[in-house]
Parts: sequence; structure tokens; C-alpha cells
Amino acid sequence: MLNSIDPRGPRELDKKKIKAENKQLIEEIASFQRLLFAEDKQSILIVLQGLDAAGKDGAVRSIFSGINPLGSNVFSFKKPTEEEFAHDFLWRIHQQVPRKGMIHIFNRSHYEDILVPSVEGYFSPETIARRYDHINHFEQLLEDSGTRVLKFYLHISKEVQLERLTDRIDNPQKHWKHNDGDWESRKKWDAYMEVYERIFDKCNVVPWHIVPSDRNWVKVNAIAKVLHQTLKEMNLKWPELETMKFKS
Amino acid sequence: MLNSIDPRGPRELDKKKIKAENKQLIEEIASFQRLLFAEDKQSILIVLQGLDAAGKDGAVRSIFSGINPLGSNVFSFKKPTEEEFAHDFLWRIHQQVPRKGMIHIFNRSHYEDILVPSVEGYFSPETIARRYDHINHFEQLLEDSGTRVLKFYLHISKEVQLERLTDRIDNPQKHWKHNDGDWESRKKWDAYMEVYERIFDKCNVVPWHIVPSDRNWVKVNAIAKVLHQTLKEMNLKWPELETMKFKS
Repeated sequence: MLNSIDPRGPRELDKKKIKAENKQLIEEIASFQRLLFAEDKQSILIVLQGLDAAGKDGAVRSIFSGINPLGSNVFSFKKPTEEEFAHDFLWRIHQQVPRKGMIHIFNRSHYEDILVPSVEGYFSPETIARRYDHINHFEQLLEDSGTRVLKFYLHISKEVQLERLTDRIDNPQKHWKHNDGDWESRKKWDAYMEVYERIFDKCNVVPWHIVPSDRNWVKVNAIAKVLHQTLKEMNLKWPELETMKFKS
Repeated sequence: MLNSIDPRGPRELDKKKIKAENKQLIEEIASFQRLLFAEDKQSILIVLQGLDAAGKDGAVRSIFSGINPLGSNVFSFKKPTEEEFAHDFLWRIHQQVPRKGMIHIFNRSHYEDILVPSVEGYFSPETIARRYDHINHFEQLLEDSGTRVLKFYLHISKEVQLERLTDRIDNPQKHWKHNDGDWESRKKWDAYMEVYERIFDKCNVVPWHIVPSDRNWVKVNAIAKVLHQTLKEMNLKWPELETMKFKS
């Protein structure tokens, strides 16, 4: 299934036109966000998943740079701490969901608790299957409470990953991004693809967006469009003035 | 259904014998708890529900007095704060679930988010029905993660509630417990009974224990027995020594 989606996106795209469109979308998203914050009734949770070097950090930077930091937060979920590990896998995730008026971005998420255990065989298939179930119900809980959950898989080719990981070794300004573990995971490429496909199949109460991510401007365009459309559909309203008491 | 359960419990009970049994049970629970804490692999969540003056505070005091405070915590859920209210109803609850090795007691719980809205008609029946569903999945998530969830409904008669609420007015040492709101809720007795019965029916993925609570020693006996039995079934083990390195 992922095989049939070109990580470069549609061939015929006009880079200049798309980049202009991105600029416009990002500006409008920033306007919508001010309204979301003022209305204080609904919220958005953006989940970014993808292999190493898929461009998650870059997506955060490009799309959310215009957004008021007061109304947005980014959370990067790394290896669980001892305390996190001593609870159910959704415990640390649930704590960071957005309150009304906020946009939260999860740079990696609860899906890591499916991915690594599946690829490494830490849990039985039954345990993994129950996690699918728990995730579906958790996301439904959020949706039922006025949070729109937007899930993006940043889809890159094996070649582009190699380029980017190599660049992290060759370019001194990217050394800080290098991690031996990424090269180890790369060896398990097919296993990761398989698990992702299973996730798209099993955890789809809230739908996934597969984002062609070999080219950054294509990636930004796909994410920005979904976010823009979602904000538009939320029918956000400026709140009415609550009192006229102090008008002289 | 609640009508058919006597809040005094079985008539033929021998108070002296039961009180002696309670003492024994409570001591053994305290021993088990030390083992639970040392093992650091499983946990227990006790949910106490009941009308005002049903004896929730007293139950906590009687049963958990012998327990090491290091290994146990009590959480009383009151009216949600603004911040709590700006999230899904399980957000504040999930934060307080026990980590491995711990016993947590919820003095009131997520079930309040069904009770009051149902009786007062704040939400549609559909919204309430979804909450049943979310609660079931949430409790299942905890059970799947090594937490035993024990839910107790403290069942009192209308007469005993009247006695106890009146005592809070007559006895200066209980004035601090008096609350006008309790008398308001009392007027809606039948509505609360109805909602509780619906909860027992709908939220039973983890079973409820109906505890006859008109007599405190009967109440303590019922709760202590369930907790004792649960701890016994958990098959707790003292951990092996991890290293012999420092043995000279």
C-alpha cells in the first residue's frame, strides 16, 4: 500500500506556484489560530509520524512558525522515562493533549508504542492488538471532547533517507542530528513499512494522512492544506463581548 | 436492583466476630501492600463511590490506616477546575492512576462525570452513553497494564443518610462536613439511584461491588475482603537479589 504512493508526490507540480500557495496557507492558518485561541472552545492535536529523517522537525518549523506560541505547544516523545514506563502507555500522552483553544503537535506519539515493540517483537500480537484498540478509543475520546485529531505519516523513499542520514555525517551543522540508532533502524526498513501499514489499517477511527515527504515543499503543502481545511470547517467564532458594564 | 439489596447487610452477622475478622484482614492487607511495593510490577486502583454520607472517608481511614503512605495515595475528585474542565473528562483522572507498586484510592471518581450530568440533564443521553464507553475502555487500558481496578458502591438507606446529615448539623465536630448541597442532592435520591443502576449495567467491564454501608463494620468487612482476595490472587513475589557484587 505504501509502495503504491510516490514519496515525491504528483510529478507535474509547479514548485514556484506551490511555494506561493504554502506561504498563503501558512498565513491563513496563523489567522485561524488566533480565532481558535480567542474562541476557547475547540482544540487541535497534530500527530506527526515518520521514519528517521522523514522531516518531522522541518514540518513543525515551516508550518507553525507563524503561530502564536501562547496558543501552541510541541511535544517530542522520546524513550519513556522510568516513571512513564511504570504506567500504561497512554498515560504520558494523555497528559499533553491540548486544552480548549490550543494546538498541540506531537513529534512522534503513542504510535511509537506500537512501532518499536512490533518490529523488535517485545510484545505478543495480542498485546499489540489491544493497543490498537486502546489508541482508537483514546483518539475517539479526544474527538468527542472537541479536539480535532490530525494524523500525518511523513512518507519518504529509502534513497532520500540515505541522502539525509549521510548529510548528518558530512555536514558539521547537522552532526547533532546524527544517531547510530537511525542506521540500525534503517536496516529494518521493510519491517517498519509493514507495521505502519498495519497501523493505518487498524488505527483508523481517526483517519491518517499519508504525506509525500521526499520534497519539503510538497510535504508542507499537503499538511498545510489539511490543517487549513480543518480550521475552516471548525466554524470558529469570535466570542461576543461578555459585559458592557464598564462602558461609560 | 439496588432496592433488593439490604444496606444493613445480612441480618445474622455477629458484630464482635466480624470486627475481629476486620482487624485480621487489615493487618494482612498491610503485609501484602509491602510486598506489592517491593515487587514493583503491579498496582491497584480502588474507586469509592456513594451518596453523601455513605462513608467513603471512613472506609479510607479504616482500611488503609495500616498501609505505608509511601506506597499509597488518596485522591478526592471535586468539582473540576477551569483547567480540568478545558480537557476531556478523563484527563485529570488518568494523571492520578497508580504507577507500578502503588495503591491509589479515588474518593469519588470519573463516575461523578456521569452522575451529576445525568441527574441534572446537562448532556444528551448520547453523550452520556459515549462516556460509559470511554470509561469502560479506560478501565480496560489500566487492567491491561497491570493495574487491578476495584470499584465499590457504598450503599446506604435513606434513613441512615438522614441521621448522618443531621448529625453534621448537631455535632460541632462534624460541622466542617456539612454542606447545603448534600441536602439538595438528597431530594433527588431516586434519580441518583436510577443513574447508579444504569452505571452498574453499562460500566461493568470491570465489575462493581455493592457494599452494604449502613453499618460501618459491615462496610469495612466487605471492602477488606475484596481487597484481601485481590492481593492474594496477584501472586506477588519478593524480588530476587539483583547482584552479589558487594558480598565480601
